Amino acid sequence: MKRTAFSALGRRTAEPPISWLMKMTLDHPHLISLAAGFTDNPSLPVREVRETLEEILRSPASGPPALQYGSTVGDPLLRRLTAERLRVLDGVKPARGGGDLYAPERLLVTSGSQQLLYMITEALCDPGDLVLLEDPTYFVYLGITQSHGLRCRGIRLAEDGLDLDYLAGVLEQLKRQGELSRVKMLYLVTYYQNPTGVTTRFEKKVGALELLRRYERAAGHPIYLLEDAAYRELRFAGPAVPSALACAGLGERVIYAGTYSKPFATGARVGFGLLPRELFSIVTRIKGNHDFGSANLLQQLMARVLRSGRYEAHLEEVAPRYARKAAVIGQALRAHFPASVRWMEPQGGMYVWARLPAGLKAGLRSKLFQAALARDVLYVPGELCYADDPTRRKPAHELRLSFGGGSLPELRAGIARLGEVLTAQMG
Amino acid sequence: MKRTAFSALGRRTAEPPISWLMKMTLDHPHLISLAAGFTDNPSLPVREVRETLEEILRSPASGPPALQYGSTVGDPLLRRLTAERLRVLDGVKPARGGGDLYAPERLLVTSGSQQLLYMITEALCDPGDLVLLEDPTYFVYLGITQSHGLRCRGIRLAEDGLDLDYLAGVLEQLKRQGELSRVKMLYLVTYYQNPTGVTTRFEKKVGALELLRRYERAAGHPIYLLEDAAYRELRFAGPAVPSALACAGLGERVIYAGTYSKPFATGARVGFGLLPRELFSIVTRIKGNHDFGSANLLQQLMARVLRSGRYEAHLEEVAPRYARKAAVIGQALRAHFPASVRWMEPQGGMYVWARLPAGLKAGLRSKLFQAALARDVLYVPGELCYADDPTRRKPAHELRLSFGGGSLPELRAGIARLGEVLTAQMG
Repeated sequence: MKRTAFSALGRRTAEPPISWLMKMTLDHPHLISLAAGFTDNPSLPVREVRETLEEILRSPASGPPALQYGSTVGDPLLRRLTAERLRVLDGVKPARGGGDLYAPERLLVTSGSQQLLYMITEALCDPGDLVLLEDPTYFVYLGITQSHGLRCRGIRLAEDGLDLDYLAGVLEQLKRQGELSRVKMLYLVTYYQNPTGVTTRFEKKVGALELLRRYERAAGHPIYLLEDAAYRELRFAGPAVPSALACAGLGERVIYAGTYSKPFATGARVGFGLLPRELFSIVTRIKGNHDFGSANLLQQLMARVLRSGRYEAHLEEVAPRYARKAAVIGQALRAHFPASVRWMEPQGGMYVWARLPAGLKAGLRSKLFQAALARDVLYVPGELCYADDPTRRKPAHELRLSFGGGSLPELRAGIARLGEVLTAQMG
Repeated sequence: MKRTAFSALGRRTAEPPISWLMKMTLDHPHLISLAAGFTDNPSLPVREVRETLEEILRSPASGPPALQYGSTVGDPLLRRLTAERLRVLDGVKPARGGGDLYAPERLLVTSGSQQLLYMITEALCDPGDLVLLEDPTYFVYLGITQSHGLRCRGIRLAEDGLDLDYLAGVLEQLKRQGELSRVKMLYLVTYYQNPTGVTTRFEKKVGALELLRRYERAAGHPIYLLEDAAYRELRFAGPAVPSALACAGLGERVIYAGTYSKPFATGARVGFGLLPRELFSIVTRIKGNHDFGSANLLQQLMARVLRSGRYEAHLEEVAPRYARKAAVIGQALRAHFPASVRWMEPQGGMYVWARLPAGLKAGLRSKLFQAALARDVLYVPGELCYADDPTRRKPAHELRLSFGGGSLPELRAGIARLGEVLTAQMG
């Protein structure tokens, strides 16, 4: 029979590496997965959700409206509480006049922050356009850039965030090549980054925005900073860093992507964005075409969870649990991994990034990966987290280890097995 | 400052007419809206949702998993029960071998059926491609075609569905023009259509699929029928019509878009699609990029609502309420509308389509619309439901009247006022 005529986007949309990893999990029922980005199951807010939904549904005033359509932009209370919360987290006072970056009118509720990343990319990027992003970066975002036919430039990442000199060099090179007009944004995962655990220092956000601003004239249009703050609230050590919105005079170029999915309940998938005014209406229209608004019941749930104080209480309960898991995986890494493997103590989020000696390969087809699988332990090969960028090779000697989902014994056993495999491989 | 460089999609994504109508509602607090596509508020399944969520969340076996990520394709139980239910509705026996169109593996769970419409369009259509659709059609779908830069051809609609001779004529014309290779699908809202209330006879589905099949050779690829069955389960009169999936030997070209949003709870927004195998993996990947799966909690909710029989019981409770509303709006139309206005008694769904004498204009800028607004009554101008199609003019003398959301007194009063305005206008 004749073949389906897919669109260019359809043809470009590749099988995500994650589905291959998930298949591995199904095929190996006794597998310890250090790959999945699951949150801590025992601390999921079952009681809080149960009580709050009961409050909503038992009242004739709130029950039926929660089961009816809301608006495309989202529930008014949720928008207000979320915007206020961000202002407080950033320590920024309300601005006078129309320039308030934390105005609820700039807040769009989405289905997880992932939907916002998708819609922003749709709104700004044509095939062939350029997105700058961290080396390495969140690999699901790479699925979006790939499906939209975008070109990527990876920016070197230091332990305190983006290498600004490297960013400056890339921008300068793109300017020389006459490619700046194709650069639409810089995508950064700024808190306990997926996959490296790196948090971007505030001064680096300022520096990045200043650099982008400097090249805007040559680009002929704004170059946005898309700040993905998905893990921001899973902090258990180190200082609280304000978002890029707080960069005085530069925050108007920031698209802030946040979520209640990771810190509260991934099964509820309530995310949001704070958007520059000039983007807000277009992205809202796109949202209207996608689904004309996220599920109202879950928005009402999140609004009440925030208002009642249950959200803050939950965060305080969760932080020590992740801290404990991070400590346990750290102990196990010190005990079982060869000394030549480099990794960084996490301060939040759920990932540890391990760098093997440069010659050793960790990819899906590597001996290491296969040997780990034979010992029933799974990790994410680091090379999956690098964009296709013709200006550099993808490092192949890194691995992402998640400590969010596993129990303490699983973390210990998983790292011990992986350590044995590594030791054997490294002879 | 320099202007934002939106993508072509961003630039094409127009303000939806619905937001203008919603603004009207806000500006006129005493307005009776016969425009909004709301469902019947008092019969929303608050008790059913409350009990089911309580069941899920009180059990340690089901509570935490419901608040954790699910898979991109959707909850296994929900997929199975939904696919089985469709098979029963269609009265089709399980096929042997790999050709079973109702296999749960073909079912993708989405955020309302709207998200499926968006992703199917993304997967199949490039700018300039052609979509055939009913004249008139669901206007939110027109937002999708517009943002993707698609060309549309409107197919005349009779009281029992698509005018097949007209469809044949359009296909023949496109063949002559060498445009068939750009035709990707025929989009039909087959049950109690939004906006006309028309239900497509089963024989017409067969006829449409046969026609599409006949032109596939010249097109060089499959031409799909995207069957939007959003209102299927809101039936209160007339026969139960099988879906296009049941068209023997032709169902493999059918993309079936269904939803629990309209018949159960729009605030939960659980939709689904049954997809041809060759589309399933690409659309699932696109879904992965959109949001890697709809909210798990709501999927668990719907799965249990189906399994417990609460869903069927709810449908039986809801049908007479819509029947009553349809009867009341019918009585009011007979009592208050001039005899020259044509409309069709609804058998399901929530819309009545009224045709004024051809000279009279009903559009947003018409005297009629303004006069109605001055009397605090709002309708959807029919012209908003017609695609841009250079081969015909958009009729301007029609209106869509919703009876889903309004109370019986509101429906009576709204139609009475509109009748007075019409009588005055028609002199």
